[in-house]
Amino acid sequence: MLSAPDGRVVVTTDLLIEGRHFRRDWSSGYDIGRKAAAQNLSDITAMGAVPTGIVVGLGLPSDAALTWLDDLTDGFRDECDLVGASVAGGDITRCDLVVIGVTALGDLGGRAPVTRSGARPGDLVAVAGRLGHAAAGLALLREGRDGPAELIEAHRRPAPPYACGIEAATFGATSMLDVSDGLLQDLGHVAKASGVALVLDPEAFVIPPPIADAARQLGADPLEWVLSGGEDHALAATFPVHARLSPAWTVVGHVIEGEGVQVKGVSLVRGGWDHFHE
Amino acid sequence: MLSAPDGRVVVTTDLLIEGRHFRRDWSSGYDIGRKAAAQNLSDITAMGAVPTGIVVGLGLPSDAALTWLDDLTDGFRDECDLVGASVAGGDITRCDLVVIGVTALGDLGGRAPVTRSGARPGDLVAVAGRLGHAAAGLALLREGRDGPAELIEAHRRPAPPYACGIEAATFGATSMLDVSDGLLQDLGHVAKASGVALVLDPEAFVIPPPIADAARQLGADPLEWVLSGGEDHALAATFPVHARLSPAWTVVGHVIEGEGVQVKGVSLVRGGWDHFHE
Repeated sequence: MLSAPDGRVVVTTDLLIEGRHFRRDWSSGYDIGRKAAAQNLSDITAMGAVPTGIVVGLGLPSDAALTWLDDLTDGFRDECDLVGASVAGGDITRCDLVVIGVTALGDLGGRAPVTRSGARPGDLVAVAGRLGHAAAGLALLREGRDGPAELIEAHRRPAPPYACGIEAATFGATSMLDVSDGLLQDLGHVAKASGVALVLDPEAFVIPPPIADAARQLGADPLEWVLSGGEDHALAATFPVHARLSPAWTVVGHVIEGEGVQVKGVSLVRGGWDHFHE
Repeated sequence: MLSAPDGRVVVTTDLLIEGRHFRRDWSSGYDIGRKAAAQNLSDITAMGAVPTGIVVGLGLPSDAALTWLDDLTDGFRDECDLVGASVAGGDITRCDLVVIGVTALGDLGGRAPVTRSGARPGDLVAVAGRLGHAAAGLALLREGRDGPAELIEAHRRPAPPYACGIEAATFGATSMLDVSDGLLQDLGHVAKASGVALVLDPEAFVIPPPIADAARQLGADPLEWVLSGGEDHALAATFPVHARLSPAWTVVGHVIEGEGVQVKGVSLVRGGWDHFHE
């Protein structure tokens, strides 16, 4: 049983499948628990709500050790502790591969929920939290690298800017979501739901040194990780142009009439994207 | 977003795995959706709460047809409609087998939740809804039989006595759960959580004609289906001895000091059970 003082409850659910969303040889049970909880708690904060708890449905192969299960549940609990939420229940069943279904609940505290459909021409687009870290970390793991450590750690365990969601709601965010699939793809949902176009300024994105380092190592484009990499669970929101934002937020674009997401100087192509090579 | 007028929300989750909890060649997508929703909605009513909605996490293999998915979601919706709940969201991902994670939420309407731990010596044990139907239906399917149709239908689609949960709460139920694994096994949870023993009277269980018929066909013991068969999602509850019950409830036993579940004249053995052969 969870508290719902608002009289309404927001709820979100995700299903994570071994081999698709995580690998037991790349991440510990503890990290997988942290990450599975994080992505749902983050989604709750992206509605401007306070997470109150999670419930977990777990499919476990017979080869999974009991200590692995303990680590996983420790991960759930520790991530929930970050936001004052509880692990309110669960269900365990046998399955040939590890399947983790997490459902998170949240309380709106009397505020209207922030949706994806409220962005209006003239609004600013802003982001809070890390972008590209998890994608760079995954690329490093795929190439058998073991550093920069903070990127690999970011792949294993996101650090969503939990407090920024409610902050954005009180700042008057007109739309918001957490970046799970990549900024461009996720903002595409905002553009579609709001019936507007979003224009991003690539100059507004500062490439952090470890990402620049990893890109050099792998011959990759750091901006692509930042714009297209998912799983960091940054928050992306639109705000009225005169909204007062805290330093946690970086303005990276604006909303215009039209449709889709544009990046100045970059041509986005189906299934991927390319810089203009001028 | 779901309504939570009580200011608290009860929540339950289940993970269903293809091959373990259902087979696509034995049940339609529609029936699987009905059943997956039913088992969670039933669990909510067993706490004395009114189901408000479900969210669904879905793992789907690439060979699953789009029409199958439509049927499944129709099943979720129609089962939710029975109790006035809504399908409030979901998540779909690729998986090598069908995985269905259902989370249901419910509202207590100002009542205390009915738990498993409140049974007291002297209480009556009563059940509402069907027992043994789904187990008999499954046994028939395993033997390649196609009738009695109502039993096979009962395996494919439970018919939980949804209204009886809140009724029981208002009648003063001291403990309650829905029978998902079998009456004896599930009442064992009540006995343990409440620190009491439950004594059932096998004479109190009327064997319905189709179950008697199926038992004759298969040479099975009908009472075993009734006492040990799961998945019908009947409700089992304990009540103070002078509680006024509606005709939906059948008194089948009573609570005494001690531990475990006893059936008069039947010796329960580890991993199963046997009649006394006197």
